[in-house]
Amino acid sequence: MDRIRVAIVGYGRLGRGVHRLVKMNPDIEVTQIITRDPTRVRRQVKGVPVFSIGNFAPLADVAVLCGGSKDDLFGRVTRTFTGRRLGGPEKLGHGPYFAQFFNTVDSFDTHARIADYSDQMSRFAALNRHTSIVSAGWDPGTFSLERVLADSFIPMAKHYTFWGPGVSQGHSDAVRRIKGVVDARQYTLPVKPSVAKVRQGSNPSIKPHDRHTRLVYVVTEKGTDRKQIERQIKSMPNYFAGFETKVIFVTQQVMEKKHHAYPHAGFVLACADKSVRPKSVIEYRCEWASNPDGTAGILVACVRACYRLNKMSMYGAFTMLDVPPVFYSPHPRGKLLKSFM
Amino acid sequence: MDRIRVAIVGYGRLGRGVHRLVKMNPDIEVTQIITRDPTRVRRQVKGVPVFSIGNFAPLADVAVLCGGSKDDLFGRVTRTFTGRRLGGPEKLGHGPYFAQFFNTVDSFDTHARIADYSDQMSRFAALNRHTSIVSAGWDPGTFSLERVLADSFIPMAKHYTFWGPGVSQGHSDAVRRIKGVVDARQYTLPVKPSVAKVRQGSNPSIKPHDRHTRLVYVVTEKGTDRKQIERQIKSMPNYFAGFETKVIFVTQQVMEKKHHAYPHAGFVLACADKSVRPKSVIEYRCEWASNPDGTAGILVACVRACYRLNKMSMYGAFTMLDVPPVFYSPHPRGKLLKSFM
Repeated sequence: MDRIRVAIVGYGRLGRGVHRLVKMNPDIEVTQIITRDPTRVRRQVKGVPVFSIGNFAPLADVAVLCGGSKDDLFGRVTRTFTGRRLGGPEKLGHGPYFAQFFNTVDSFDTHARIADYSDQMSRFAALNRHTSIVSAGWDPGTFSLERVLADSFIPMAKHYTFWGPGVSQGHSDAVRRIKGVVDARQYTLPVKPSVAKVRQGSNPSIKPHDRHTRLVYVVTEKGTDRKQIERQIKSMPNYFAGFETKVIFVTQQVMEKKHHAYPHAGFVLACADKSVRPKSVIEYRCEWASNPDGTAGILVACVRACYRLNKMSMYGAFTMLDVPPVFYSPHPRGKLLKSFM
Repeated sequence: MDRIRVAIVGYGRLGRGVHRLVKMNPDIEVTQIITRDPTRVRRQVKGVPVFSIGNFAPLADVAVLCGGSKDDLFGRVTRTFTGRRLGGPEKLGHGPYFAQFFNTVDSFDTHARIADYSDQMSRFAALNRHTSIVSAGWDPGTFSLERVLADSFIPMAKHYTFWGPGVSQGHSDAVRRIKGVVDARQYTLPVKPSVAKVRQGSNPSIKPHDRHTRLVYVVTEKGTDRKQIERQIKSMPNYFAGFETKVIFVTQQVMEKKHHAYPHAGFVLACADKSVRPKSVIEYRCEWASNPDGTAGILVACVRACYRLNKMSMYGAFTMLDVPPVFYSPHPRGKLLKSFM
């Protein structure tokens, strides 16, 4: 059997996770890595050709785009489109740029811009007879899928999403930017009484601040005013203000020993209102000791789906909401009907 | 907006559930009921035309087949096919018979025969330019879907299915057939230590007998030897022998008051083996105070998907593994991208 050939674009935490997960899928192989810093990556990786973003030959069926949503994937040119190679990857964004050369899978996760991003990706991919699966992973991704399924299967239900316990990269970064902070790790925790209330089936209104609490481990420079740093964290708008937040100061040693992993978890919960129909609950949970590996496992299954959609001439951009589930599986449909139904 | 017109075929517990659930979906309406006993159903239902199975006009876009898998859906003619109306519904089975007149949705649940049934349905539906979604519901159905998704997203994982706490119809019927038993209700319960072992991520081997225990409530005739009945239940092969089983004798009053509902629940659990990769867990759970209503909610969403597949000229038989999730939803795709991703 010919294996599906994958290009990994961007070789940070997620890119390395995709590399590890491809090795667990015998029908897929990594045939190239494309990165801003080929010198660094060539030192880390043996046996796979490494190219620079500005100068590569396309040697794969599907590219997995592992850049960050904010800076890399979605470019500044969002409204015009005049043909091929309108600009380099920096101007166009990695998404539209690479959709010219490959079928693509990405985890674009700025929720409010997914519709626009998908729209732009669709035009770039379709014009080049490519297929792109956008915004895959677990949220957006499987959680989006489960929200739609639960909403469809339990009419009159409300759906709720809780995250954690796990490390939020964005919140950790925000704390790291405070003067005097050397390192930080922020854990998001779901509020158990709120979860219990939802599970009872009364469709409660729960404010964001009552859904999660935040636990921050911080390493500070010597001689810093810790009380002052704690106040700065707790009052940071959008990130911490209004949330119950606990700050714990630790040494760099403790940080490295106890908080080197990036675990994450979360769940989607949908319940019918008990006043209108008998209690009905659907709950979907995932838990990843390594968040990058969890996300990567989903992206690699999407590689398979993307490749198959393209072989069926389904060009343009798709989300996980559009993909027939059989397309993700390494097993033939006949085996799924016999062993998984 | 034109509503999707539904025929309910078979008006037992599931058929009535489908009727209730259609009313919660404003884009769908019941336009006819087809039953073996029109006289009885006409007494129960007002405002919907009721037809006999042997004599009906097709007045719907999609028929939801609510007969039992064992006796009704899959007929005896499984290998030959020579054209339309090869036989009546009794000979052909409700599935192939009604696939000649309607697009269909059913919950055929004899797991070992799903591939064959789907095959036969595909031929009857396709020849008549119809679309059939077979074996929908929660198991088979959403649980099948979640087994395939988890298996695809966590390579190296094993998946486990636990049922309960909830009423098993088949086991209740089996007890009712014992001489001296007036009524019975069997609850299937998952074994908590086994569940905990799976959640830890060691991919244990768990025998069927260690996955579930059984709790039976029984009403007996006056003067029956209860010890003897308890022995008969506990030694019944396939159903109870080997399982930890508790038998509780109750009065008919208690049975009617406390056990009139048909709740059910279950979950699919998939974990990576911790020895090969960081802990990774996906868990999907559903809980229905009314099992018929829970199943019906899923079937009604499948009506929508079936109708849409047919409008796209996708003829033949499909399972929930083949359906793009957007097709189940009452909301337009644009809204899903904006509000559910």
